[in-house]
Amino acid sequence: MLVVMRHGASQSEIDAVVAVIEEMGYEARPMPGAQRTAVGLVGNDGRVDASRIEALSGVAQVIHVTQPYKQVSREWRPENTVVKIAPGVSVGGNDVVVIAGPCSVESEDQIITAARLVRDAGATCLRGGAFKPRSSPYSFQGLGRRGLEFLALARQETGLAVVTEAMDEEGAELVAEYGDVIQIGARNMQNYSLLRFVGKLDKPVLLKRGLAATIGELLLSAEYVLAAGNPNVILCERGVRTFDTVTRNMLDLTAIPIVQGLSHLPIIADPSHGTGVRDKVIPMARAAVAAGAHGILVEVHPNPERALSDGAQSLYPEQFAQLVRELRSIAGAIGRRVAPAPEGSTAAARV
Amino acid sequence: MLVVMRHGASQSEIDAVVAVIEEMGYEARPMPGAQRTAVGLVGNDGRVDASRIEALSGVAQVIHVTQPYKQVSREWRPENTVVKIAPGVSVGGNDVVVIAGPCSVESEDQIITAARLVRDAGATCLRGGAFKPRSSPYSFQGLGRRGLEFLALARQETGLAVVTEAMDEEGAELVAEYGDVIQIGARNMQNYSLLRFVGKLDKPVLLKRGLAATIGELLLSAEYVLAAGNPNVILCERGVRTFDTVTRNMLDLTAIPIVQGLSHLPIIADPSHGTGVRDKVIPMARAAVAAGAHGILVEVHPNPERALSDGAQSLYPEQFAQLVRELRSIAGAIGRRVAPAPEGSTAAARV
Amino acid sequence: MLVVMRHGASQSEIDAVVAVIEEMGYEARPMPGAQRTAVGLVGNDGRVDASRIEALSGVAQVIHVTQPYKQVSREWRPENTVVKIAPGVSVGGNDVVVIAGPCSVESEDQIITAARLVRDAGATCLRGGAFKPRSSPYSFQGLGRRGLEFLALARQETGLAVVTEAMDEEGAELVAEYGDVIQIGARNMQNYSLLRFVGKLDKPVLLKRGLAATIGELLLSAEYVLAAGNPNVILCERGVRTFDTVTRNMLDLTAIPIVQGLSHLPIIADPSHGTGVRDKVIPMARAAVAAGAHGILVEVHPNPERALSDGAQSLYPEQFAQLVRELRSIAGAIGRRVAPAPEGSTAAARV
Amino acid sequence: MLVVMRHGASQSEIDAVVAVIEEMGYEARPMPGAQRTAVGLVGNDGRVDASRIEALSGVAQVIHVTQPYKQVSREWRPENTVVKIAPGVSVGGNDVVVIAGPCSVESEDQIITAARLVRDAGATCLRGGAFKPRSSPYSFQGLGRRGLEFLALARQETGLAVVTEAMDEEGAELVAEYGDVIQIGARNMQNYSLLRFVGKLDKPVLLKRGLAATIGELLLSAEYVLAAGNPNVILCERGVRTFDTVTRNMLDLTAIPIVQGLSHLPIIADPSHGTGVRDKVIPMARAAVAAGAHGILVEVHPNPERALSDGAQSLYPEQFAQLVRELRSIAGAIGRRVAPAPEGSTAAARV
Repeated sequence: MLVVMRHGASQSEIDAVVAVIEEMGYEARPMPGAQRTAVGLVGNDGRVDASRIEALSGVAQVIHVTQPYKQVSREWRPENTVVKIAPGVSVGGNDVVVIAGPCSVESEDQIITAARLVRDAGATCLRGGAFKPRSSPYSFQGLGRRGLEFLALARQETGLAVVTEAMDEEGAELVAEYGDVIQIGARNMQNYSLLRFVGKLDKPVLLKRGLAATIGELLLSAEYVLAAGNPNVILCERGVRTFDTVTRNMLDLTAIPIVQGLSHLPIIADPSHGTGVRDKVIPMARAAVAAGAHGILVEVHPNPERALSDGAQSLYPEQFAQLVRELRSIAGAIGRRVAPAPEGSTAAARV
Repeated sequence: MLVVMRHGASQSEIDAVVAVIEEMGYEARPMPGAQRTAVGLVGNDGRVDASRIEALSGVAQVIHVTQPYKQVSREWRPENTVVKIAPGVSVGGNDVVVIAGPCSVESEDQIITAARLVRDAGATCLRGGAFKPRSSPYSFQGLGRRGLEFLALARQETGLAVVTEAMDEEGAELVAEYGDVIQIGARNMQNYSLLRFVGKLDKPVLLKRGLAATIGELLLSAEYVLAAGNPNVILCERGVRTFDTVTRNMLDLTAIPIVQGLSHLPIIADPSHGTGVRDKVIPMARAAVAAGAHGILVEVHPNPERALSDGAQSLYPEQFAQLVRELRSIAGAIGRRVAPAPEGSTAAARV
Repeated sequence: MLVVMRHGASQSEIDAVVAVIEEMGYEARPMPGAQRTAVGLVGNDGRVDASRIEALSGVAQVIHVTQPYKQVSREWRPENTVVKIAPGVSVGGNDVVVIAGPCSVESEDQIITAARLVRDAGATCLRGGAFKPRSSPYSFQGLGRRGLEFLALARQETGLAVVTEAMDEEGAELVAEYGDVIQIGARNMQNYSLLRFVGKLDKPVLLKRGLAATIGELLLSAEYVLAAGNPNVILCERGVRTFDTVTRNMLDLTAIPIVQGLSHLPIIADPSHGTGVRDKVIPMARAAVAAGAHGILVEVHPNPERALSDGAQSLYPEQFAQLVRELRSIAGAIGRRVAPAPEGSTAAARV
Repeated sequence: MLVVMRHGASQSEIDAVVAVIEEMGYEARPMPGAQRTAVGLVGNDGRVDASRIEALSGVAQVIHVTQPYKQVSREWRPENTVVKIAPGVSVGGNDVVVIAGPCSVESEDQIITAARLVRDAGATCLRGGAFKPRSSPYSFQGLGRRGLEFLALARQETGLAVVTEAMDEEGAELVAEYGDVIQIGARNMQNYSLLRFVGKLDKPVLLKRGLAATIGELLLSAEYVLAAGNPNVILCERGVRTFDTVTRNMLDLTAIPIVQGLSHLPIIADPSHGTGVRDKVIPMARAAVAAGAHGILVEVHPNPERALSDGAQSLYPEQFAQLVRELRSIAGAIGRRVAPAPEGSTAAARV
């Protein structure tokens, strides 16, 4: 950490900064410059709270050199974390994992039909929301526990691992019971009580980037889960909010190589929420794989016109099949492969 | 709602849109134009889910004419809501309410000292966090229940109403027990489970705008609380995230007249989090009152250099006293007044 | 400048950084830390180009301690610059200057009517565009030179100083001939050729902040004008672009105290473009003055429904008169005053 | 265009809107709704100025259905525009064009070395700035005309077409004389005087998206060039500004399929400025091609550590060679190919 003093700061102000740093248990190293003095803080383990120093008289700026996250960083663990989410299905290795399904679970029939068609087209995991965070209290809020039961049936039918969102502690316990991966949505990325809670559960967590979260904040939120004891976190870029309303969000694919540089955790992309428009999902899914994503989370609906939520961004079944074929080519071009779908009727074996 | 068809959409595509609208129980009104056809949906009560229509073939865009929120809108209730938060203290009327205190409750001594000094300088309510949402799991997370007990003592000592944050359901119940207003922080603005929960409690809710939340989304989050049965919501502008890092956030004061046009709920401003820099807090607090805010939420610490959090944006006691004097002048200039602080030792009477 | 090395950078990488810094003529000061080494660059006069160092192997980050602007900074000149724009009219002192008029000059009659009514209501300067930067090539582009002639007539009639925009070098010369202040619009804030050109003219420059310009970039653009020889620059906050489309832009009033801390140049606010909505202009103009702005730039049209551009944000004459009255109260509350309008027929004396 | 009236607007307010629309020469079609009335404007040719209507009493909102651009839209011209920039080199067809070279032309030797190495690695065009828009007036501003002469020499040596930036009218004429494509930089995207000027020249224009420009605004700026008579415009996504400072800009790759849906003009991507970090350039260039870009603009320097500008984002020669190999695989995977580099010594033939 570097404390930059104002131009013209007095010696006693500089001394006060040194004193506070030492009182906090670190070493202070003053560096007089041509224009102003800076004071280095040596020994920072990433846990220094700068606000006490920022508040001191004569301080112009505090510059963080060490990142505030620890366990999620590549410096903590150089090799990639590979998160095992079901027998034979892992995220973070060489395989690109395709997670597909409808936005919401709407009925037993709908989710089983969807599961079959995404499995047949090449998906490895099934997505589908039973608890839906909707900006309006009057929108469809999901089937809740019943939706989870339908997802479990779909898994039994198809062998697909199940990824589904939890919005609170009670929901997280249910998802842990019925599903394979607990998704924390973008709006809850900084719901620290919930992060701590899923950090104590023994299930992988899929953590989506918040709409205006920096990559640093995404990693800090993952740190909450790891610090609570759960090392199995998959990050997900799903678009951020900007000034342009031509798409619902702006998919930040550069986040993929950035995260891979800073952290050992796997990162996937969600081009469906990232664009919000069906015919942009395919090129952006291709782009995500070309950028190095460990997987793709994509909305597919057996009948998008009948979807209870997000119909406009859900792929038609035949579009999804085409997408998987294109992803296989792209993955091959960079020396990777799309993870294989589970075998036809291995469901029994898995359960 | 207006459904705009693509240039060159076929008659059967238009007919399909009409059919879906009618199947949803509304009236469809096609309008052929020079360049393209639009179809109006008549009878929308604000609850129409557009995604089903967006998904139809030939649809270019769906334009929302009716706002999706209902109970929070001025059209629902033309006169201002005045939220009573303690005997003699209301937000939403002609008085400008000053809520002040430290970022975190750190000790019994600290909060009682802070409460006395903000009361003496003219505050009406005391703020102070017992549960702290921190981006790093390694930062100080607050004293929890013990912090609430200290706040209750400070209220008894000073007569100030207590505003403090809850981060989850358990915390919300405790805040409702010990405090006067349950604050929902910016990071939880779209934690819908929590919003529904505080909507069932019998305490006013102070709802802070999320870092990248539109005003429409802020109002929709308030709608969750009202829809669950609690009409006493105070909105709070606290700065949004933008491209400029010269301040921590960008305080969006235009939100004040915008909210007052769209909604009957009171809106206050938090210039401390909105700027993050102590010497910008005073001009921005003045500006908020000049823009018509119903109140101000401001961080004051007896000893900012010793603060465990947010020291850099906490006012010194003498700065706060000066601020209240300036706010009185500004409020007077626009025909309002700063709400009076509680009497010296009315504490007994209040409890 | 501080060069932060990657965790695990080798000694030879550190040595290379030191060598480049010394080759560039500065002193290098390596600082080994617990986690990584940093190298300070001492003697930076604000002109160091960091990219050469950023490109070196083993460098994680380059942190700028010294601001890249010089002549515009408070460190260069501690006292406020007061820009004299016409006899008896200055911006940057204790007076709050009100600059008002229509978006575009539309006719001789329109601008003279507008000038009279804003003068009578208390304005000090007249605004009105003869050259209009419009996002569409098919929108009204202004009357050009004829518009400037009408502005000069309006000045003669009313004694108001004239502020008007130039979009290119030819236009800047014309504005310098007919007007009192050359306005550089937000879209041209980083048109460096134009900035250099007006830096060589002997007329004050009103420089508007770009839609996504940081405050640092605004100051650097002003530095272009000062570096070319023209010290008379007035900065103008006019709203930035964010994710919320409820207003056209987000007026960043915190920019006012921020600029006043970093620079000696005066700063005014434009609540008309900053909000884009007529009934938000009045509260935001009040807020700007409460925040400490040296002036206000506001659109007023004799007949907004007939305006050829920006009708929706132009005040009605009676609204403007009310605004000036409110600004007088607010200015008084903070120890300032609204600059007086020129006397009835001092026009002859001025020319 | 749809004019939405306020809830409770009077019949005379509605009549006034109808009258103004008819006075403007269009047909008005009032549509009373359950909550409020809307008035459709029929016959809009994309040139209607809404501000006059927005200013009318009782109007809540004006919604644009027709896009304001015309000649750049797909509706105007359904087939792709293929811009021929040199004999045998076109942008907008099936080939992916690789434009590479240093940020700035620094010397004859540097640019000729760079040209040879990018040609040998597979580039089709050479980039290199002779006029540099720098945020600080004290940074290296380019070699000017001499830089253009060196570029012309490099073209003669290598057969590569030359793409270089102009910042003003004088520069544009020089670039048209020495180069093959006139680049308009992000900061000048809304410099309408310059756009009109290059619209009258007979050279292709490469128009970069502004840092906070919407895609709609980018298309409108291109419309300025087409409306002035020059149909040969290549658009370029180069990253936009957001809240996250981990990269210099956020590369918005979704802009590629979006632009391709709305317009017939070709669009390429600049991952060097789009990320600002060398080791993110390669994955993002791959992603751009996977998303469907017609080309790539990438910075390569013979010796990045010695670069006078943007060294940190310039690829090393061997990295560039690897990138071209990867792009060939990706392009092949989606049925396209990377445009071939010019033959060894076809230079004479070309000039």
